[in-house]
Amino acid sequence: MIKTDILIIGAGPTGLFAVFEAGLLQLKCHLIDALPQPGGQCSEIYPKKPIYDIPGFPEVLAGDLVDNLMEQIRPFQPTFTLGERANTIEKLEDGTFVVTTNKGTKHNAPIVAIAGGLGSFEPRKPLVPNLSKYEDKGVSYFIKDPEIYRDKRVLIAGGGDSALDWSIYLADIASEVTLVHRRNEFRGALDSVEKVQSLKNLGRINLITPAEVVALKGDDKLEAVVFNKSGDTEEEIIKQVDEFIPLFGLSPKLGPIGDWGLEIEKNAIKVDTFDYQTNIPGIYAIGDVNTYPGKLKLILCGFHEATLMCQSAYQRIFPNKKYVMKYTTVGGVSGFDGTKREAPKAVVKTID
Amino acid sequence: MIKTDILIIGAGPTGLFAVFEAGLLQLKCHLIDALPQPGGQCSEIYPKKPIYDIPGFPEVLAGDLVDNLMEQIRPFQPTFTLGERANTIEKLEDGTFVVTTNKGTKHNAPIVAIAGGLGSFEPRKPLVPNLSKYEDKGVSYFIKDPEIYRDKRVLIAGGGDSALDWSIYLADIASEVTLVHRRNEFRGALDSVEKVQSLKNLGRINLITPAEVVALKGDDKLEAVVFNKSGDTEEEIIKQVDEFIPLFGLSPKLGPIGDWGLEIEKNAIKVDTFDYQTNIPGIYAIGDVNTYPGKLKLILCGFHEATLMCQSAYQRIFPNKKYVMKYTTVGGVSGFDGTKREAPKAVVKTID
Ligand SMILES: Cc1cc2nc3c(=O)[nH]c(=O)nc-3n(C[C@H](O)[C@H](O)[C@H](O)COP(=O)(O)OP(=O)(O)OC[C@H]3O[C@@H](n4cnc5c(N)ncnc54)[C@H](O)[C@@H]3O)c2cc1C
Ligand SMILES: Cc1cc2nc3c(=O)[nH]c(=O)nc-3n(C[C@H](O)[C@H](O)[C@H](O)COP(=O)(O)OP(=O)(O)OC[C@H]3O[C@@H](n4cnc5c(N)ncnc54)[C@H](O)[C@@H]3O)c2cc1C
Repeated sequence: MIKTDILIIGAGPTGLFAVFEAGLLQLKCHLIDALPQPGGQCSEIYPKKPIYDIPGFPEVLAGDLVDNLMEQIRPFQPTFTLGERANTIEKLEDGTFVVTTNKGTKHNAPIVAIAGGLGSFEPRKPLVPNLSKYEDKGVSYFIKDPEIYRDKRVLIAGGGDSALDWSIYLADIASEVTLVHRRNEFRGALDSVEKVQSLKNLGRINLITPAEVVALKGDDKLEAVVFNKSGDTEEEIIKQVDEFIPLFGLSPKLGPIGDWGLEIEKNAIKVDTFDYQTNIPGIYAIGDVNTYPGKLKLILCGFHEATLMCQSAYQRIFPNKKYVMKYTTVGGVSGFDGTKREAPKAVVKTID
Repeated sequence: MIKTDILIIGAGPTGLFAVFEAGLLQLKCHLIDALPQPGGQCSEIYPKKPIYDIPGFPEVLAGDLVDNLMEQIRPFQPTFTLGERANTIEKLEDGTFVVTTNKGTKHNAPIVAIAGGLGSFEPRKPLVPNLSKYEDKGVSYFIKDPEIYRDKRVLIAGGGDSALDWSIYLADIASEVTLVHRRNEFRGALDSVEKVQSLKNLGRINLITPAEVVALKGDDKLEAVVFNKSGDTEEEIIKQVDEFIPLFGLSPKLGPIGDWGLEIEKNAIKVDTFDYQTNIPGIYAIGDVNTYPGKLKLILCGFHEATLMCQSAYQRIFPNKKYVMKYTTVGGVSGFDGTKREAPKAVVKTID
């Protein structure tokens, strides 16, 4: 059982910044995310795109914002359960909560902060018979650790940025990369499209278009992929591969959290703006996942909500302590790792 | 009469960021501030100190944050009335407001956003007879434009960062800099104290301590300062100077805004968290100046409040338009100066 002070569901920008605000109050956080990496929408959907409305950044790439947040929270040593979806919640007699993931990992905390954004990102799966039989046995929808593909024969399906970028990346790692797409046209950043074109010309990416994967073969694990190449004549081709990675995008689903007894409105969790608490005391909802009068689904709003939430969480955990807020400039930042950041102190000194 | 869409009182971080959010909605802003420069507390009190809780910045100097905000809002061409205090407000028959400063400058707008922080910064003045007679005639409490002091004989009084830093700065500009302080000890950043010591050793700053200014002389304008140097023997010294700048710190005062008929609680203006509007429709209060259940006086909260406020202001100005929010990443930022920042567009392109 993983134990922490604040259990955060969702490691998007809101969940990440909550770690910082909790840390200032000396509260520890653990984060669960269905994705293999932190950053939520910023990392998964548009890491290389600029955001212009983060206060103080005339322009920042979404991926850089996530890197900065990870750096900012580092002193507070957050821990993560990645690649797992929070499925169920249970309230114990001592008032704390136990949250269990789809893989059975259990987490226990007095405070649960749902920072689930638009929901847990679930891959869009191709309609191929027996697909689920091969999941984690040659079929995966995310690339958690590219090293897994070293010297393997990989087949990627898809026509967008993920399919393009991972084909480029794995061309250096895998023994063979095949990219299958049902159209001849790809949709993505110009330089990604051009890079795939040149890797194809160099023979380092096999391109098969227009084509669609229609079946999978293999006993215990994936051994071959069957696809339908439509062209002058429709032909069915069998290709021996070790790994099949369909990258057809992700769709967020509020999913199991929708059944936790929380008040839901327009697919979002209703909260009070006093502290962003839900109708269940001790469970908060911050960032894109919540709703209240005036709500805007913006990153900067999630930061504010996370901050007020932590104050309230502190009061729940320590009902008898009076917390006096100190500016970071004045009090500094004392990390759980022993680091201390602080402003140079003023001196009182004679000039003579 | 200065006309604008949103008249912002207070050019601290909250007021500045409001310009950006208003700009995204194609609304123009004008800002009034009692201080000679934008940035509020960040610029005036701790420009060289680090802040650690601005999301995405593990550390940022308060002055740099203000510079970044100024850069971020530049495309929206905000205009400023600086060095003047907003004194009175009047509602016209057409529903718009007229705000007049202590110097008589008039501003007209359909929306007023009070981002006044802890209040208008008023200088702490020394107890010297006839002080007010010489204001703007040789006595000033702020340095608006250091060039005014070129080749002048300047006397600065004070023992903190401002007195130290301006003595250093003006040593390069003025013909003579004298620094008077009632103690021998100065309180400030170590390098500032050391720099003054070395400029004193070089004869470029006259240091007179412990001493206090007790009288001013001059007919139409300031001609000399009388001070009391306490030491072995108490002596009264007359010194010919062109400019006397007492830098004894600033104290914020909600001041005249307290009489505008707004609901006040604990020296702050009560607002609704839906849109941070006050009890007077069309007048909003954002940042440190407002209060509501859960309020924290933090910069990041002001950013959130400014953002929601602008949405509501837009609806008031255009009651019949339906505004559909677009992410900056998707819609870009179209400045009033003709500039356009936008993410590189995805292409749809055949690979063959
Ligand atoms: C193309 C695009 C451009 C954008 N541009 C801007 C912009 O310019 N400015 C701006 O402010 N915003 C922008 N946004 C919106 C911004 O990305 C979101 O507001 C922000 O990501 C919300 O952060 P969050 O942390 O609340 O949620 P998210 O970033 O959505 O993160 C939520 C995380 O929770 C996880 N999760 C959810 N449920 C579960 C569960 N049950 N178990 C485990 N994990 C779960 C998800 O997998 C996800 O990683 C843009 C969004 C997109 C898609
Ligand atoms: C030493 C110190 C350290 C701090 N550290 C942190 C920190 O680490 N993190 C954090 O989030 N916050 C910190 N703060 C607080 C932070 O600076 C404030 O929250 C922030 O400045 C508030 O911004 P604002 O724009 O609302 O108001 P302000 O910055 O106070 O600006 C308000 C402006 O309005 C002007 N004004 C008011 N009334 C009038 C009027 N009638 N006419 C004309 N002008 C008027 C004032 O002159 C002022 O310039 C710190 C503050 C101090 C003093």
